[in-house]
Amino acid sequence: MVRGPTTDEHGTMSDLNEKFARLGIESAPGQERRQRTDEVDLSGPVLDGTPVDFSHGDVDAFTPIPGSFDVVEAGFEEGGAQAYTEYRGRLSLREDLAAKLAHFTGAGIAADHELIVTPGTQGALFLAMGSCIARGDRVAVVEPDYFANRKLVEFFDGDLVPIPMDFLATSSASGLDMGALEDAFRSGVRLFIYSNPNNPTGVVYSRSEVEQIGTLAERYGATVIVDELYSRQIFDDRPYTHLRGLGVIDPERVITIMGPSKTESLSGFRLGVAVGPPRLVERMEKLQAIVSLRAAGYSQAALRTWFAEPDGWLAERVAQHQAIRDDIVAVLDAVGDIRTRPTEGGSYLFPTLPPLRLGIADFCKALRLQAAVSVTPGTEFGPAFTRSFRINFSQDHAAAVAAIERTIEVVDRYRAPVLEVAAGD
Amino acid sequence: MVRGPTTDEHGTMSDLNEKFARLGIESAPGQERRQRTDEVDLSGPVLDGTPVDFSHGDVDAFTPIPGSFDVVEAGFEEGGAQAYTEYRGRLSLREDLAAKLAHFTGAGIAADHELIVTPGTQGALFLAMGSCIARGDRVAVVEPDYFANRKLVEFFDGDLVPIPMDFLATSSASGLDMGALEDAFRSGVRLFIYSNPNNPTGVVYSRSEVEQIGTLAERYGATVIVDELYSRQIFDDRPYTHLRGLGVIDPERVITIMGPSKTESLSGFRLGVAVGPPRLVERMEKLQAIVSLRAAGYSQAALRTWFAEPDGWLAERVAQHQAIRDDIVAVLDAVGDIRTRPTEGGSYLFPTLPPLRLGIADFCKALRLQAAVSVTPGTEFGPAFTRSFRINFSQDHAAAVAAIERTIEVVDRYRAPVLEVAAGD
Repeated sequence: MVRGPTTDEHGTMSDLNEKFARLGIESAPGQERRQRTDEVDLSGPVLDGTPVDFSHGDVDAFTPIPGSFDVVEAGFEEGGAQAYTEYRGRLSLREDLAAKLAHFTGAGIAADHELIVTPGTQGALFLAMGSCIARGDRVAVVEPDYFANRKLVEFFDGDLVPIPMDFLATSSASGLDMGALEDAFRSGVRLFIYSNPNNPTGVVYSRSEVEQIGTLAERYGATVIVDELYSRQIFDDRPYTHLRGLGVIDPERVITIMGPSKTESLSGFRLGVAVGPPRLVERMEKLQAIVSLRAAGYSQAALRTWFAEPDGWLAERVAQHQAIRDDIVAVLDAVGDIRTRPTEGGSYLFPTLPPLRLGIADFCKALRLQAAVSVTPGTEFGPAFTRSFRINFSQDHAAAVAAIERTIEVVDRYRAPVLEVAAGD
Repeated sequence: MVRGPTTDEHGTMSDLNEKFARLGIESAPGQERRQRTDEVDLSGPVLDGTPVDFSHGDVDAFTPIPGSFDVVEAGFEEGGAQAYTEYRGRLSLREDLAAKLAHFTGAGIAADHELIVTPGTQGALFLAMGSCIARGDRVAVVEPDYFANRKLVEFFDGDLVPIPMDFLATSSASGLDMGALEDAFRSGVRLFIYSNPNNPTGVVYSRSEVEQIGTLAERYGATVIVDELYSRQIFDDRPYTHLRGLGVIDPERVITIMGPSKTESLSGFRLGVAVGPPRLVERMEKLQAIVSLRAAGYSQAALRTWFAEPDGWLAERVAQHQAIRDDIVAVLDAVGDIRTRPTEGGSYLFPTLPPLRLGIADFCKALRLQAAVSVTPGTEFGPAFTRSFRINFSQDHAAAVAAIERTIEVVDRYRAPVLEVAAGD
């Protein structure tokens, strides 16, 4: 039998092996059940308690916007017009969204040219980055920030330029290193991505910081993608600043991403929205056409209930999350050597642990096996976060607090001996 | 003000402009309303009749599987377990699908490692090709075939190697040029993609052809992606051959794609399924994680009704489509110089017109404006098809036949003068 070289012998195929090896998802939120756990050092007995999956919000604890399924059902009954929308989403829906989001973000939106409905905000991020990153482009990404940002830069063959955010150093601003951002722009970076509120820390950027980001990007002709997924869930009446509403940067170079998956618990419909200049929205739609055509037609209808929730519904939801945050932060602070910056917006908290005698990925596996608590290792958000983990505290209030108490017990099991710390840390 | 170079002055950014310029979607099915039409030469008055959009099936004429929305509603009521599935789809659902598809395709499927649920078959194609194509790889694609296949190869920076299919030459086989396919493999091509039934012609590959494809791919160590989206709608009791069920090629190198969007009219849920070896399914899931996380959780539930339709439902649907095909083909054949191969499977028909005095894209625009009939230009399926268009005849029967009659009237308006043909065609 004549045999050509097998695919694995190809140079290009090895590149592909490497590329996908870097795209690890074993520790990604929701994927924990696929982990290998046979090599984890388990200390002590299993702790009783209600299992809590902090890797994502619990839509059973905080249910979807009332009426959201009814509009989807009406869309299904309507039939073809809702099933087969333009790739960028149904026009009447985009008109509705454009008006709502223009009001929310403080700047006008042309429904037909500046907005695209996407399969979740993950879809929006993919399309936005795919529309802006060419092979070899250097792209500035905050550390810590949403793990997919880094993976997407790598997938599109860009080069990561990390911009550190010292979120534990201050409480009046995010702690983003503006000098590093300007250095990056000065050295040729033409794309910057950040989430506000920050994922995983829950930090909200100050108005002055957002102004500086916009002003720097404008000065160097850079494009900014801002992920504002959690911008409706801001605590303590803190002010929130939309970059696109500030007027400090040419709208031709700003993409704003939002969606109803988090605060509004519509994640099961997979819906996101991106707002940007016509030239980039057009690229995003072209990419959508080969990626998945459109956000599921029937699902799109659920967006009608977004920003149209019953009176008081959103305020109550925000207050409930703020209360959970307060209780969890109090429990963590009482330990003494777990460092936490209280969440300012969104449902994430990113505690930093004392030195442990096992790595953070293994700690997360042990925590799941010993305490039925799933959290996401800090290293998913930047290589430096080897002692942090992220929780999404959009959970049943009492179960979440109890799960954090169990987490602290497991931390105590794995504390590194003090001497070893002095010598090696 | 200090200004760095703008993005448009970057070499890499021009590459991106070029890349997206190639990714045209103006003539893509469903996108017609975004077209510029001010430069089209319109001859004659507007023809009355029910508008028909042949660019995709009409889910109002052929409605979704009975009960499909009820299971989605049950999934919504169930809550988090259905909203947040593994990226590859909910396990209990994959188990159900693996059993059904193993039976249908004639070879076993391991639910946990060999199957992934995707956002539509478009999503499955994107993930499959992204998992197999490295920059510079040469990829064999049938001409004509589904337009996104070619766009995807280009998007992943592969090089297209077209394999011609002379679908008008024979009726006992597809007419795929096996010599060209072997030449491609011999010259180093390690990936071949084809749809069966073929999109846009509706041709079903003979058993002997599928065997040859598998045997050649096996001999040269190539991977085959086969899109079997329409494999449940086969006419005239014609036999259908699943490559994966034949046993002529190592399953490590076959990806089979299916979905309930067409015959079953579940397209509004955006659901597809890919079956392949664990190593490629794992890559596809990694890619899914950064593209859109998962097929919409609630939508996934609809898959439970797939391959579980009420008794006789599918047979009746196939018979109804076969009847529409017969009537449309009779009307086209009566013209005399429109060449058509009757659809063997699926809902597509790909007529070849006599010479016209305008290009096929402009003809399609004129047809829409003058007769309220939307069709897809042949050039979307391969550069050679400058006198063909595709219709999806999954439409109201009478309206579809009437629309084809109007189409013929518009063809007559644009026939090229015979002399001009002799001189220039």
